[in-house]
Amino acid sequence: MRTVFWDYDRGTVKLIDQRKLPFELVIAEYDDYTAVAQAITNMVVRGAPAIGATAAFGLALAARQSQATDRLTLLRALEAAAAILNASRPTAVNLAWAVAKLLRVAADEELDDANDVRDALLVAAQKIADDDVALNKRMGYHGAELIADGDTILHHCNTGALATVDWGTALGVIFAAHEQGKKIHVLVDETRPRLQGAFLTAWELKERGIPFDLIADNAAGHFMRTGQVNLVLVGSDRTAANGDVANKIGTYKLAVVAKENGVPFYPVVPTSTIDLNLAHGDLIPIEERSGDEVVSVLGQAIAPAGITARNPAFDVTPHRYVTGIVTETGIVYPPFGKNLRRAVEEAQEQERD
Amino acid sequence: MRTVFWDYDRGTVKLIDQRKLPFELVIAEYDDYTAVAQAITNMVVRGAPAIGATAAFGLALAARQSQATDRLTLLRALEAAAAILNASRPTAVNLAWAVAKLLRVAADEELDDANDVRDALLVAAQKIADDDVALNKRMGYHGAELIADGDTILHHCNTGALATVDWGTALGVIFAAHEQGKKIHVLVDETRPRLQGAFLTAWELKERGIPFDLIADNAAGHFMRTGQVNLVLVGSDRTAANGDVANKIGTYKLAVVAKENGVPFYPVVPTSTIDLNLAHGDLIPIEERSGDEVVSVLGQAIAPAGITARNPAFDVTPHRYVTGIVTETGIVYPPFGKNLRRAVEEAQEQERD
Repeated sequence: MRTVFWDYDRGTVKLIDQRKLPFELVIAEYDDYTAVAQAITNMVVRGAPAIGATAAFGLALAARQSQATDRLTLLRALEAAAAILNASRPTAVNLAWAVAKLLRVAADEELDDANDVRDALLVAAQKIADDDVALNKRMGYHGAELIADGDTILHHCNTGALATVDWGTALGVIFAAHEQGKKIHVLVDETRPRLQGAFLTAWELKERGIPFDLIADNAAGHFMRTGQVNLVLVGSDRTAANGDVANKIGTYKLAVVAKENGVPFYPVVPTSTIDLNLAHGDLIPIEERSGDEVVSVLGQAIAPAGITARNPAFDVTPHRYVTGIVTETGIVYPPFGKNLRRAVEEAQEQERD
Repeated sequence: MRTVFWDYDRGTVKLIDQRKLPFELVIAEYDDYTAVAQAITNMVVRGAPAIGATAAFGLALAARQSQATDRLTLLRALEAAAAILNASRPTAVNLAWAVAKLLRVAADEELDDANDVRDALLVAAQKIADDDVALNKRMGYHGAELIADGDTILHHCNTGALATVDWGTALGVIFAAHEQGKKIHVLVDETRPRLQGAFLTAWELKERGIPFDLIADNAAGHFMRTGQVNLVLVGSDRTAANGDVANKIGTYKLAVVAKENGVPFYPVVPTSTIDLNLAHGDLIPIEERSGDEVVSVLGQAIAPAGITARNPAFDVTPHRYVTGIVTETGIVYPPFGKNLRRAVEEAQEQERD
């Protein structure tokens, strides 16, 4: 089962409700694109590639909801829906990328009427989803070259099947190494405040029978300093043209400590999340989420009542801490300015072919 | 009220049960030293100085529990009790220090009989407790020199009144700056897995009306990199002769990232926790606690059932990341090898005076 998919019988968007994992496997169903946008905001679905595919299916859904009978009226409705979907999470570049892609499809003047637009949007959204899975597998097998038999890999947040349409990015690399028969061990950062490591990554590794230990985020430095980590793999919600990466809060600390200890640090990044128009990472807007996520766990208070908390959801890791970047076209090494551009262009050429 | 104290009416040891804070203020009472040792293991009381005073009162209690009528029989009982108390937490040097100190008092040949030994032990334990409070205030005012009006201070774990007999070490520096009328703001690391920051430091700061925000440990790097932190203050359970510090897990990551960003990093350390016999930090035994602390929060599972977790309770921060060390004799700067020895000797001279 995929993390996000279109139900062709019912004409609805379906999502694995990740807020219920690892305790329950619940499939949420949406027949209204504003509810899809809300689901992205509320993190029913999370992970940049999964959000991108969800927004694409959301726009395909918006087209079906619209009563428009002519093409231009439908396009206006789609632009309004796109604005709502774009606003649902500020940091993930895939979201804007997927929405923009579908708007271009909708604007194709070769489409004769509103229903042709509706059909074309669903085809395009399905292609984004299918391409994501194929691309993740390519990334996974490129990245698996970095993993030797017997390695221990430190992983932050969730970047698995649940963060994508299927298979995953950084966790997909681990799955690929496991499929190749390499004996590996994973240290799983729990990833406060939302505990995506404890909830989701632990669940995915357990389901696949890959050996791992959960650790508090605080413990990662100790394991690196004492020589117990061979490789750090993370995702990236948005990568700037110079190789700076914006990823789940805590990634920056990991990267600095990895470099300090000579542990290779690789973000695993579909080229769709590389934003060549952003010169560096400090131009990436950092979402600050509600302090409620910090002062409570699973609805239970973990701090005195009435206090305040700060809750930036992402941080920026400057490229000088990044050993290399795994993409679907291969592993990109410094100088990132030149080499990321080449990887993006190569991916675009492959897509055109 | 102190964190640990002797009830002179009832002849018992009393502890604020820190496992109940910040939700309930419960005073636990002990009339059996083995239960005191258990309370240390179970972290009813935590923080190196508080553990030291608790173990001292525990040994005074053991002397009263013993039926011995002659001095030598009592001394043998005390040695057995000392072994049990020493084994209750492996990392905190104050524990061994306080127990050894009381054993020396008990062995004083000027004491005529068993009851004299019992009285002398209680006097000595009470002095350890009183000295801790006086010493913390001296440390606090030395350290407060590092804090300017308007500063934001990042703090890890709990090092306040609850970590000591009263007032605190690193948090005591913050209290002193606040008492001096400086406008300060504290970023409080929640400190997974046991959440001492969220539970205890937030409670102490709130009680004193000092402005703060709670943050996930993962967010500390972001705030340092973006210039929002002026100073990092932490405690240290054990400091080696070369200035390496063993402190709550996560301290090492903070120190590395602080140095990387030019943010001063100061452990606040009573000289009793400096172990001149340890050449460097990697000789300090690191307690690994049960994985249950990682896979659950307040008794609620936060991970799939049946998984394993690693849970080192402390990490070692090499002295090259340490800007200076605040002690009760003043602030010690590198070279630590020479200057820590001088601080310890000065403190011992003051104690003899």
